[in-house]
Order: sequence, then structure tokens, then C-alpha cells
Amino acid sequence: MLMLPTFAQHPLVRLVAATDPRPEARSRFVEEFSSNGFAAKAYDTLDGLLADEAVEAVYVASPHQFHVAHVRSAAAAGKHILVEKPMALRLEDCRAMIDVAAEAGIHLAVGHSHSFDLPYLRTAELIRSGRFGRPRLIVGSNYTDFLYRPRRPEELDTAQGGGVVFSQAAHQLDVVRLLAGAEIESLRAVTARLDPARPTEGAYQALLLFENGASATLTYSGYGRYDTDEQLGWFGELGQRRDPSQYGAARRALAQVSTPAEEAALKEKRAYGTSGNVAGRTAPAAHNHFGHFLVSCDEADLRPMADGVRVYANDREWLDPLPAPAVPRAEVVDELHAAVRFGVPLLHSGEWGTATLAACLAILESAATGREVRLGSQSTASARG
Amino acid sequence: MLMLPTFAQHPLVRLVAATDPRPEARSRFVEEFSSNGFAAKAYDTLDGLLADEAVEAVYVASPHQFHVAHVRSAAAAGKHILVEKPMALRLEDCRAMIDVAAEAGIHLAVGHSHSFDLPYLRTAELIRSGRFGRPRLIVGSNYTDFLYRPRRPEELDTAQGGGVVFSQAAHQLDVVRLLAGAEIESLRAVTARLDPARPTEGAYQALLLFENGASATLTYSGYGRYDTDEQLGWFGELGQRRDPSQYGAARRALAQVSTPAEEAALKEKRAYGTSGNVAGRTAPAAHNHFGHFLVSCDEADLRPMADGVRVYANDREWLDPLPAPAVPRAEVVDELHAAVRFGVPLLHSGEWGTATLAACLAILESAATGREVRLGSQSTASARG
Repeated sequence: MLMLPTFAQHPLVRLVAATDPRPEARSRFVEEFSSNGFAAKAYDTLDGLLADEAVEAVYVASPHQFHVAHVRSAAAAGKHILVEKPMALRLEDCRAMIDVAAEAGIHLAVGHSHSFDLPYLRTAELIRSGRFGRPRLIVGSNYTDFLYRPRRPEELDTAQGGGVVFSQAAHQLDVVRLLAGAEIESLRAVTARLDPARPTEGAYQALLLFENGASATLTYSGYGRYDTDEQLGWFGELGQRRDPSQYGAARRALAQVSTPAEEAALKEKRAYGTSGNVAGRTAPAAHNHFGHFLVSCDEADLRPMADGVRVYANDREWLDPLPAPAVPRAEVVDELHAAVRFGVPLLHSGEWGTATLAACLAILESAATGREVRLGSQSTASARG
Repeated sequence: MLMLPTFAQHPLVRLVAATDPRPEARSRFVEEFSSNGFAAKAYDTLDGLLADEAVEAVYVASPHQFHVAHVRSAAAAGKHILVEKPMALRLEDCRAMIDVAAEAGIHLAVGHSHSFDLPYLRTAELIRSGRFGRPRLIVGSNYTDFLYRPRRPEELDTAQGGGVVFSQAAHQLDVVRLLAGAEIESLRAVTARLDPARPTEGAYQALLLFENGASATLTYSGYGRYDTDEQLGWFGELGQRRDPSQYGAARRALAQVSTPAEEAALKEKRAYGTSGNVAGRTAPAAHNHFGHFLVSCDEADLRPMADGVRVYANDREWLDPLPAPAVPRAEVVDELHAAVRFGVPLLHSGEWGTATLAACLAILESAATGREVRLGSQSTASARG
């Protein structure tokens, strides 16, 4: 649901087919994306979709634990692939995905993650220009209501990829790796489970050391209390305007359900095919973001915002503005398209996604063992096989 | 200069004597604090001050490296002592100070540090009430222009107690220890020197693990760019209203001087006796603070602000207001007075100051060795002798 507006509106994409076990989603898709004599197809199995010759690239947005199987199938069928983050739940699955993609000669991109968001790409570009010196200290902090959005039971079970480390650290680590411009050498982290009724990690804190000498502290809490959007001019994660008077809305909505089945049904209500068309929805007021980030370089502090990059230089500060996007998350399509059509190397490659998963797993490991975990090129290299 | 308004205005204090090597400071003191037939005294040596029987308690605000000698002398003279933070530069000096205070039977308090500030004391009280569960994750972040305020050369030399770890982490660690309500078990930290012209630590990041299972990330930067006061309604560290249009003022002022001697002279211009009286200065608009803190408890996020404590509970959020103080930093006098007159145990005792210094030293050690440093009751106990 979060990527559909992108695919529907991006001029370089035509949505030709989809697969979904739910008949209402299939019929809605055919209705919404057929036009001017073009008939969109909807399949009840993945094999049906992959046999469709009109399909050139596949977006794998199945639950985390199915990514590896679905990527294997799509690669075998010769389709280019965009697979949602986290890429998988185990490093060996990432390696398998990279291998099948290489054998099939297709491009495998991992995303959307928020490191595709233009404010972060622009901040990284400013850093890489060298104009402000090296990145040295980074802070990332995000407080959301993630844990109180309606969930399927497995999303509250860490062993099945539930909790904020797999779903949310994957974003925050992606962004901070992009900003640092280097791999993580080691990290020390703690996780927290504050609500026995949601028995998975709902918060974490970490100190990251990068191979280029930069460091970062990350804090994430999904407990629906303090909200970092306050620091981003009340623009939300999707670039939408937020209303601070709606404090506690996610918890209140969830309080209306009393069983896991009711909660899953509440989540289902937001799935594709249950409400109106997606394509025509209003464009966001600003860019996607993932909370507060601040990068202290030798010569300036850089702060990606939903509407640009704020530069705090030694003598003055200004906003490097980024007008609201015409198509939300257009950067995801742009990157995959450039790879498929022009051979431009993917930033968000399988190796990239593997390194981010390695860091997610390192957060869980450090929290469990009480020790600093070494990462760096070694883990990525071994994941590369 | 920062405590003088407190002593001058607090109804439980009479300033009876001072010592300063500068004649202009001595004559100003006598003039400002003599009244109604009472003659304030100013001495050119510490021994002169300590021989004055009217002096009941001494405030030691000499440079860090002189604290241990001055505390020894004051304790030997039987005076109660308030010694500025950091208490000393070495743990053995802290132990010596605790020992001489115990032998002399006097109260030894360490401060002002920002953990005396009412918003933090009130936040700690809310946490200790148990109403919101245990403190679990804490974030502390402070971005100031510390490194560009005029300095004496030794203040830019870490070996002599210079840099932000001794002067500023002492505050941030004091506050976070108060909020966590437990000793630090271990920490991992990095420090940064971003400006070769100011060759000492100007920034640091740390992950702290507390004995009660709480954790904290701390970030401090004194490089005069992004300013955390933005997150505190543009109230400054002293509770004063800030003007965001004065961006970069500290760096611009410092750019006017070209030698260490000129810089020291610029600092001297702000010393006591060089401008008008201090006693009558306007009361601050809000409370002192030390940047952004957010404490995630089991059942609420608590955010100390300059004008109160913002409580983000599960169902609603509100400000627990703290009206502007009549006397700035009154809490320092209140605490020492309660100890001296009524035997109320000091929160900011020698042991407290020792534990904070141990954590400052651990930041430097972790940054130098690249390893997590264990602290906890052991280091404090050994410092206690």
C-alpha cells in the first residue's frame, strides 16, 4: 500500500500484473490499472504472475520470511526484482538471493527503505562533495507509534521477523550507513520490551563505529508517546502533514480490538482492495523521512528535513530546499530503472541489503550478549560468499 | 560569575568574604556586598579568607586543577565546602577530598552541576514515584558553542582538564545518573576533535548501561553550529531567552582575537569586577537546563524542559509546569543549607562527584582504547577508600 502510489504515478512504470490470494484485491487491481484498451492481469499464484511475459520487474512485498522463496522464483523466471526490507531474516538467505540474482543475470534491489528518501540522498551528496569535511558524529532518533499499528501475530514475534529491529532498524541503519558513507565496523546496542502485551522489541539504542572513523548513536522507540515528527515541522514519515492533536490515536484504535484475530482483521482492513483506488491519491506535502538525523562534519552540521537539508555552517545556517515530490518515493523506481535500462550500479543492491541485515542482527546479538559486536567488510564479504 | 547571582539573591546566604588575586575584583566585592553597617571582606590569599571566622562555607570555583588543594585547605579550616564540577581531574584526588572532609567533619558538596536544575529534580521525582514504571531508555543531546567561548590556554589542553569531557560531560553525566536513578555499570564512547585550532575534545558520543538495566545515549558537541536550545523553546542553558538570529556569535567574537593571550584577555573581561554589579541582575525567564533529555519509562516518556516537565503518557500528554525561579540555581544553596543546618544527606556529595568524574574518565578511556569500560559500584567504592 505504501509503494502503490509510486508505481501508479511514476512515468517510467506501468503496472501490468499482480498476485494476491484475496479475490477482492485481484478484482480491484484489474479494475484500477486497466485503461485505454490495456488489460491489467491479476493472478492467484506467484507462478502465474512470473509466467506473464509482460512482467519485466517484480516488487516482492510479502512478509519478511517469504522474501527468499519469492526472490528465488522471480529470479528463476528472469524478472528484475525489488524486494522489501528487511531483505531476509538470515544472512545465508541474503547470500542465496544475491547468488540466484547473479546466476539469472537480473538486477536485485532492496527497498523501499528510507535511505532512498531524497533528503538523505541530498545530504549524502553534500557530505561526499567534501565541502564540509568528513562526517564525524551522527545522531539518529525516531519515536513513532509503530508497535500499536495493527499487526499479524507473527509481527510481534522476533523469531519470525517481528519487532522494531527487523522492521525499523532496517530503515535507520540504512540511512545512517548512507550518511556515514562507510560500513559499520562494530556496534554496541540494547533493546527494550516495555509492553508485555506486545512481546517483541519495541525500542533500541545503539552506538555505531564506522570504518572511516565516524560514529553514530541511534535511538528508536515505537511506543506511541513522544513523537519525533515534532522535530520535522510535523511532517510525517510519508511526507504528510501531521496533526499533533491526534496524540495517542494508534493506541486508542487498537484498544477497540481484544484478540489477535480481531487485530489481524483490523490490519486487513487497510490492505489493497478494501478501500478506494490508490493511484489518484493526493501527492504528499513533503518528502518521506525516518525521524531526526544530524550529521556533524568537520566544518558543518547537516540536518535532513522533510523539505530540504538544513546546513549549520560555521558562519551561518540555511535550508537547502527540496520541493515536495511530484511522485512519492520516485527515487526507488529511478534507481531500479537506471540499473535495468542503463546499467547504472544499484546503491541498494543485495550486498547493501545484506550489510543492513547484518547490522540488525548485530543489534539483537549485542543486546543479548551484552557485548560489542564486530561487523565491517568481513561480514558483508562472507555474506557475498 | 554564574553562581554569584544565586549567592547574592538567596535569602539563606550572606556573602561575607571573597578571595581573588585581582585588586579590581576585591574592591568591587567589598563595595557590592557591604551594606547597612555590614562590611564584606576581600582577601588576596585563600589563607586570609579561611582565617575569617565569619566564613561558614566556602565556594571553590578555582580552575579544575586547583580544587584538591583548595578543598584541603578549606576543610582543614573547618569550613563547609561547595566545590565546582568536575570535582577533580583524578579519582585519587576525589578520594583525598572525601577523606579530608570526613576528618574535618564538614559537608562537601559538588556543584553547581545541571543535575541541580529543578526540571531534572522534578523529572527524577516523577520517575521515583513509580507512577510511570521504571526508567528504561534515556537520550541526552546537547549542541552548544562551548568550544568558542573565550578560553585560557589550559582549557584547551585535556591533560590540564580542558575540553568538553571534563567540563561538559560532567553536567550531562550528572543529569543522566540522576534520571536513571542508578550507577553506570559500563559505557562505550568516542570523542572528536574537529578543529585543529582548538586541540581538545569538542564533541563526544556514548552509550551507557546502568546497574538497574536502563540505558542512555549521550551526544555533546561544542562546535557552535546546530543549537539544541531550539528543542527547548529557545530558552538557554541559564534559563534566559535566546535569539536564534544571533547564529554564530561566539565564533565571530572569537575571530576578533589572534593570540592565546588576547583570548585569555577577552575571557578576563567577563570576570568579576570588570563590569557592573552582579547581585541586581534580572531573574531568568525559565530554569537552567543542559539540552535535550528524554526518558522512556515503561508507561510514559518524560521530557524535562526549561519551564516544566512534559509527560507523554500512553493516553495523553501534558506539561507539568515549573514557574520561573525567583533565585537562579537556588537548589544548590537549598541542598547545602539543608545538610549543614539539618543534617539532610547531600545528593551531590563527594561520592556523587567522584562517580561522575569516574564516568568522565571512562569516556576518555573508552575513546582511547576502543573498548567498553566497566564502572559501577566498584569504581565508586574504591574511590571511597
